[in-house]
Amino acid sequence: MEIKVVKNILKANDDTAANIRDILNKRKVCLLNIMASPGAGKTTFILKLAECLKGRVRLGVIEGDVASSVDSKKVAAAGIPVVQINTEGGCHLEARQIRNVLRDLPLEEIDLLIIENVGNLICTATYDLGEHLRIVLSSVPEGDDKPYKYPGIFNLVDAVVVTKTDLKPYMDFSQEEYDKAIRTINRKVRIIPVSAKTGEGMTELCDWFIENMK
Amino acid sequence: MEIKVVKNILKANDDTAANIRDILNKRKVCLLNIMASPGAGKTTFILKLAECLKGRVRLGVIEGDVASSVDSKKVAAAGIPVVQINTEGGCHLEARQIRNVLRDLPLEEIDLLIIENVGNLICTATYDLGEHLRIVLSSVPEGDDKPYKYPGIFNLVDAVVVTKTDLKPYMDFSQEEYDKAIRTINRKVRIIPVSAKTGEGMTELCDWFIENMK
Repeated sequence: MEIKVVKNILKANDDTAANIRDILNKRKVCLLNIMASPGAGKTTFILKLAECLKGRVRLGVIEGDVASSVDSKKVAAAGIPVVQINTEGGCHLEARQIRNVLRDLPLEEIDLLIIENVGNLICTATYDLGEHLRIVLSSVPEGDDKPYKYPGIFNLVDAVVVTKTDLKPYMDFSQEEYDKAIRTINRKVRIIPVSAKTGEGMTELCDWFIENMK
Repeated sequence: MEIKVVKNILKANDDTAANIRDILNKRKVCLLNIMASPGAGKTTFILKLAECLKGRVRLGVIEGDVASSVDSKKVAAAGIPVVQINTEGGCHLEARQIRNVLRDLPLEEIDLLIIENVGNLICTATYDLGEHLRIVLSSVPEGDDKPYKYPGIFNLVDAVVVTKTDLKPYMDFSQEEYDKAIRTINRKVRIIPVSAKTGEGMTELCDWFIENMK
């Protein structure tokens, strides 16, 4: 019984995700799903990405959080169109929630629509949101062993962005060990270390987006 | 249909949790459930706690992870009895998993049995594991706004341990703002800032355990 219900939910989610992709393909909007642990730096990352893509790519943002509108306020303050979804206890976003808010965004003025998913390295990996690109943010303070512990999400994504690299001098974090861990799970995924503070990696990252946006 | 299934699962979980509490009460073992984001420092915290409780409280550990036995190897190397549960994609531990491994631990030699739950600030809050004490670890690099975003878990716990305080000089983290955020959700919970690196707060923390263990 339990398994059947779960399967039905996932099937319905996949159908809605396919519908979202159709809608956005017609409007030439690329949808990006950003996943990460709580506090990995998703919102700061979005704000930095907006800076370096300015004049080239027009952004829109869907903020997913269990509660609060802390993040959407920051994004709105940067002049980026944004809607907030509060899951009220839900541990991930689902496609129907994304479709519901598409009408609240000026899609004709957006090239790259970014979903900041709920802070969760596990449940978010199960739900297709209709995205064209998926990335996971993994921060230096979380440690270089994270890929071993959460293989599902690291296997799923188009790029792994290692954030907060400016903290490396103060942590036991080896980029070499981290890359080795990723390669046991995903041989080909692009790994991009960045720091919002020093700007490290941001140019490489923006180039990656320009190249991979459909 | 969906809701009914979820309710049945939670009821079965609560019954098993009550049974675990009975078993452990008879053996005078206190069960502690540690919850946190991925990379908040749960394993390091357990190893530091073991050091400062040495000779006073005998520990045992149940390690919960989606995959790998990285953490249980570290705990075993410190001479602490440990069992590993791999959830293989599951986003939290459930009471039946805890009961299943009790037989693999030398309960007669353990005063404080510690569960290191899966790294997840949302789903772990829903499942009673038969614990007597619940704490959440929240690391400085995750930011001082986390309580607003994950209110459920911060409302549930007996203590909030703020880890990695040695990183405060390098981060935009205000302990005052963090405490304010916690107080909007949980007026009474004890907040204990600690650093495994400098030892800050470890004595206060150990005293809290001695005082609150049943």
